[in-house]
Amino acid sequence: MEVFAKYGTPAQKEKWLKPLLDGKIRSAFAMTEKKVASSDATNIETSIQRVGNEYVINGLKWWISGAGDPRCAVYLVMGKSDPKNKEKHRQQSLIIVPADTPGITVVRPMTVFGYDDAPEGHCEILFKDVRVPVENMVLGEGRGFEVIQGRLGPGRIHHCMRCIGVAERALDLLLARVTDPSRRTFGKLLAEHGTVVADIAKSRMDIDQARFLVLNAAKRIDEVKAKGAMKEIGMAKAVVPTMLLTVLDRAMQAHGAGGVSQDFILARSYAQARTLRYADGPDEVHIAQIGKVELRRAAEVTKSLEKQRERSYALITGKAKL
Amino acid sequence: MEVFAKYGTPAQKEKWLKPLLDGKIRSAFAMTEKKVASSDATNIETSIQRVGNEYVINGLKWWISGAGDPRCAVYLVMGKSDPKNKEKHRQQSLIIVPADTPGITVVRPMTVFGYDDAPEGHCEILFKDVRVPVENMVLGEGRGFEVIQGRLGPGRIHHCMRCIGVAERALDLLLARVTDPSRRTFGKLLAEHGTVVADIAKSRMDIDQARFLVLNAAKRIDEVKAKGAMKEIGMAKAVVPTMLLTVLDRAMQAHGAGGVSQDFILARSYAQARTLRYADGPDEVHIAQIGKVELRRAAEVTKSLEKQRERSYALITGKAKL
Amino acid sequence: MEVFAKYGTPAQKEKWLKPLLDGKIRSAFAMTEKKVASSDATNIETSIQRVGNEYVINGLKWWISGAGDPRCAVYLVMGKSDPKNKEKHRQQSLIIVPADTPGITVVRPMTVFGYDDAPEGHCEILFKDVRVPVENMVLGEGRGFEVIQGRLGPGRIHHCMRCIGVAERALDLLLARVTDPSRRTFGKLLAEHGTVVADIAKSRMDIDQARFLVLNAAKRIDEVKAKGAMKEIGMAKAVVPTMLLTVLDRAMQAHGAGGVSQDFILARSYAQARTLRYADGPDEVHIAQIGKVELRRAAEVTKSLEKQRERSYALITGKAKL
Amino acid sequence: MEVFAKYGTPAQKEKWLKPLLDGKIRSAFAMTEKKVASSDATNIETSIQRVGNEYVINGLKWWISGAGDPRCAVYLVMGKSDPKNKEKHRQQSLIIVPADTPGITVVRPMTVFGYDDAPEGHCEILFKDVRVPVENMVLGEGRGFEVIQGRLGPGRIHHCMRCIGVAERALDLLLARVTDPSRRTFGKLLAEHGTVVADIAKSRMDIDQARFLVLNAAKRIDEVKAKGAMKEIGMAKAVVPTMLLTVLDRAMQAHGAGGVSQDFILARSYAQARTLRYADGPDEVHIAQIGKVELRRAAEVTKSLEKQRERSYALITGKAKL
Repeated sequence: MEVFAKYGTPAQKEKWLKPLLDGKIRSAFAMTEKKVASSDATNIETSIQRVGNEYVINGLKWWISGAGDPRCAVYLVMGKSDPKNKEKHRQQSLIIVPADTPGITVVRPMTVFGYDDAPEGHCEILFKDVRVPVENMVLGEGRGFEVIQGRLGPGRIHHCMRCIGVAERALDLLLARVTDPSRRTFGKLLAEHGTVVADIAKSRMDIDQARFLVLNAAKRIDEVKAKGAMKEIGMAKAVVPTMLLTVLDRAMQAHGAGGVSQDFILARSYAQARTLRYADGPDEVHIAQIGKVELRRAAEVTKSLEKQRERSYALITGKAKL
Repeated sequence: MEVFAKYGTPAQKEKWLKPLLDGKIRSAFAMTEKKVASSDATNIETSIQRVGNEYVINGLKWWISGAGDPRCAVYLVMGKSDPKNKEKHRQQSLIIVPADTPGITVVRPMTVFGYDDAPEGHCEILFKDVRVPVENMVLGEGRGFEVIQGRLGPGRIHHCMRCIGVAERALDLLLARVTDPSRRTFGKLLAEHGTVVADIAKSRMDIDQARFLVLNAAKRIDEVKAKGAMKEIGMAKAVVPTMLLTVLDRAMQAHGAGGVSQDFILARSYAQARTLRYADGPDEVHIAQIGKVELRRAAEVTKSLEKQRERSYALITGKAKL
Repeated sequence: MEVFAKYGTPAQKEKWLKPLLDGKIRSAFAMTEKKVASSDATNIETSIQRVGNEYVINGLKWWISGAGDPRCAVYLVMGKSDPKNKEKHRQQSLIIVPADTPGITVVRPMTVFGYDDAPEGHCEILFKDVRVPVENMVLGEGRGFEVIQGRLGPGRIHHCMRCIGVAERALDLLLARVTDPSRRTFGKLLAEHGTVVADIAKSRMDIDQARFLVLNAAKRIDEVKAKGAMKEIGMAKAVVPTMLLTVLDRAMQAHGAGGVSQDFILARSYAQARTLRYADGPDEVHIAQIGKVELRRAAEVTKSLEKQRERSYALITGKAKL
Repeated sequence: MEVFAKYGTPAQKEKWLKPLLDGKIRSAFAMTEKKVASSDATNIETSIQRVGNEYVINGLKWWISGAGDPRCAVYLVMGKSDPKNKEKHRQQSLIIVPADTPGITVVRPMTVFGYDDAPEGHCEILFKDVRVPVENMVLGEGRGFEVIQGRLGPGRIHHCMRCIGVAERALDLLLARVTDPSRRTFGKLLAEHGTVVADIAKSRMDIDQARFLVLNAAKRIDEVKAKGAMKEIGMAKAVVPTMLLTVLDRAMQAHGAGGVSQDFILARSYAQARTLRYADGPDEVHIAQIGKVELRRAAEVTKSLEKQRERSYALITGKAKL
């Protein structure tokens, strides 16, 4: 929806954005591919080839969230229109594909742990010689990367904010459970066991630390836009989902069998949170980037440490005075 | 099945064990209750009351694995026949309840991280004024604890053994994934990233350490029976499921979206392994018991340390000689 | 020094605070005792008994920081003046003891790991029938606890602030080391190994999270004084020293043998930081208190969750409408 | 000493091994260098150059353990005799250098967390134009690597064995401390706090797992010699010192200020154990090698998984039968 609003032509907006806003139809974003490592977006293989006044699309996508909804009427498909372009980030285009175009097969819904998240679902979709008019190109050939870049930073911080909320809810459930008088073990409330109290305290400390990271990233976005806040966003994204999983796990453990079941939100939240450790950039990629940003300071730091050492040495040997 | 074989009367064996062995029917063990903390088995509330020549059973059980199978013809129900007995472990009895007895309602299947494990399932079952003849009592009134005790030790080690196998499989999947040439990121095989190599090495070290704990417990069982090996079994049970979850998590992370899906065994195995952190005794209970067993050595250790200190002091001050 | 400034009588200030401020003498605070668990301050055993116009002090103190300095002219000694008082926190008094009073033996300096922190040192001191005039009592009998309470909150946050600074310095040293061209291994700069980059990133994330906790506690102190900010101070104190140890340990590892030696501040900082995990309240005590503060919300949380469940149920069953 | 025994000529043995065995002199091994990353042994820069009937040695070594002992009469110095040899492991030689040879300066003792381990010490030693006769070469030019290789495997396992012993002692101290009636806090023995009991249990589980790794490595050495057991030795070396540090840290925490002091072996043991995380190969190198050994199975594992998948598919689609 944001893509139509931000990058759509007037005609594209008229045709798709209006019914989307009216809640008459839904859209789905088709980015991830089954056969390649999607944590590196330049790996995408789906082809978008111009033939006359049309683009022909071929590729196998999966985890297309929302595609299972019967109201889903349109896909935004990312593919390569110019796979040999030397600028790796100019090879991709984003194109609008109506869901009823011939050549599209919704293969199956994917499950997240055992959840299929029906009816929306996360579908595997085959595009075979799917043809759409050239007007369906978004922003212009070779500008696909640009579009998703604008989308990712804020998306990541939204995920993190939701995670903080879920973590607070998990801690609430933990507090309620361990003080439930019907859950006594060995003559004690769960809350009277020292290890349980420690779990609660650690959860509070973990949540608060993570929350401050998110607030800090949000503040930076306000100050310098998402692009300038990539390090702060990356730090939140690398820390928050793992924190949430830890807090959920502690709450689950106190709930016993109930914790993994449909009776509490804990297991479902765990499954969702787990996907965030690879979605929108796996932890490993964020961590590597944060490390590299820090390393940019290395030369300056080395020089400054050197100076301090020389100064200390001069002071000790009497060659300089305080 | 083992219960019938080990504790059944000839009549009970004839009626239930035979068709079980022939694969004609299945049985389910009804122990866990929804309303109480089942990590402390003395909390059970289901009542088994003698009225004339019958026992009347009332209670709400859940997580009755296998009860969803249409072939499941009989339940073994744990309840309290003598809730006021001062010996807390003589209050319980185990009784045979045919699945078609009036008063039984299979409420719903429970899910484990979204998996319903159909058709077997893990069911919630309501027993309301369910009546069975007195001959259905297993071993005798007040001996329920005895029966489950005999079952738990070996059960725990079986779980651990299976976990080791699953962990090895997860590591295999990890090895295959990170060397898959179609999964290159940023110009490298996953296996060429140092953090991935470290994950593999840590998994190997984690698995091997856990395996040795299991082998050691098995050896102790052979030497001194399950009862004498409670500490070694408890150590394996407290360590192995968590180890497996860690190894599965690393493998999932390398598989990205595939890792949480139905395309690999990883997420399903994770859900199953997670239940082992509370089933058959939650980690916390095992850990507390291991700690207490160690503490039994404290007085002797203190005395021995004291003696060594006196000896050292005497040597230093010249009051004793080497 | 703060004690004299905040709680001293004019005469006490004239006699001790003035030379302290002029840098002519130094003072030391004698609180910790060898024979009891000092994490619970009510355990103190040193006696301060009034006899005529004097107080007689008997006890064995250790870890009296600064007592080894030849300029240390006065001790502030905490002891029990009224050990049978039913109010456990009115048993203690704080008294001024000139270092040259007869009956004082400086037994030995204690070492922290292998550092004796000479000349200041952390001394074990025996007080045997040490007599001082009644005017040396600080604030009045039974008010010792009051004095140290006023000192602890801000002291803890100061420790945490310094820790953040040391952690930044440790990260600087790490950055300099891993980019030092003379430290190549296996043909690569250390900074080119993925696990090293990850260590750097994790350190940055750990430090920033901890820093925000400290800033938050400082803000709370400004808003509601130290007493109202006990939870926030406790969280910082429970998190920050452990964070610092982790960051120092990573930096040490990259420095190899140099890291544990006198050539870098890392090992010395590690030793100092390690003492903060028990000084001014061990981690365990802070964690238990934070857990208990959270648990105060439990009843309210339980009620609110209950209400939400009822509301959901009413919506699902049609008994209520959105 | 082992070097003389194993690789010495009869003359070398007569001159050095005999007085060593008689306890009249001591020797020190000079391998580590200050200016390079010693975790990669090919980085060594000390030069051993033949000039006529002598070798001339130039270089700066540090952490020469035992060199501070007044009885230390001889150094075994590792250096490069043929730095341009294309075979990287044939560049090094090991040479015998009497401690009183002109040109040797013992610069200073290094400290480990403040401990100088006097009198033996770990010294920094400058070799400047130090000349020894050609007979002092061990085994022959270019064979230095060979000598240290033979020494490392068994050395590593010895370290690990000692670590297990120290860990057991640390656990003993922990048990004694937490049951010491004079160490009550908040009305309880330390051993009555649930988190303390958990620390004890975790220490037992950590120690036992690590012990089994060491026993397994020792068994492999017996079966296939150290060279064939590199993976098992590496696993023990990568796991055991970190385990020991964790156990020591728990014991220290229970000892409060005493734990970091000279009154218990804990802090000193911690300092020593910390050096083992980089000495004889840093953790990172062992972990990377274990990962690489596992990865050798990848191709075979991939093929086997592929076959199993094909078989499953054939069974499901009816193209094969069980």
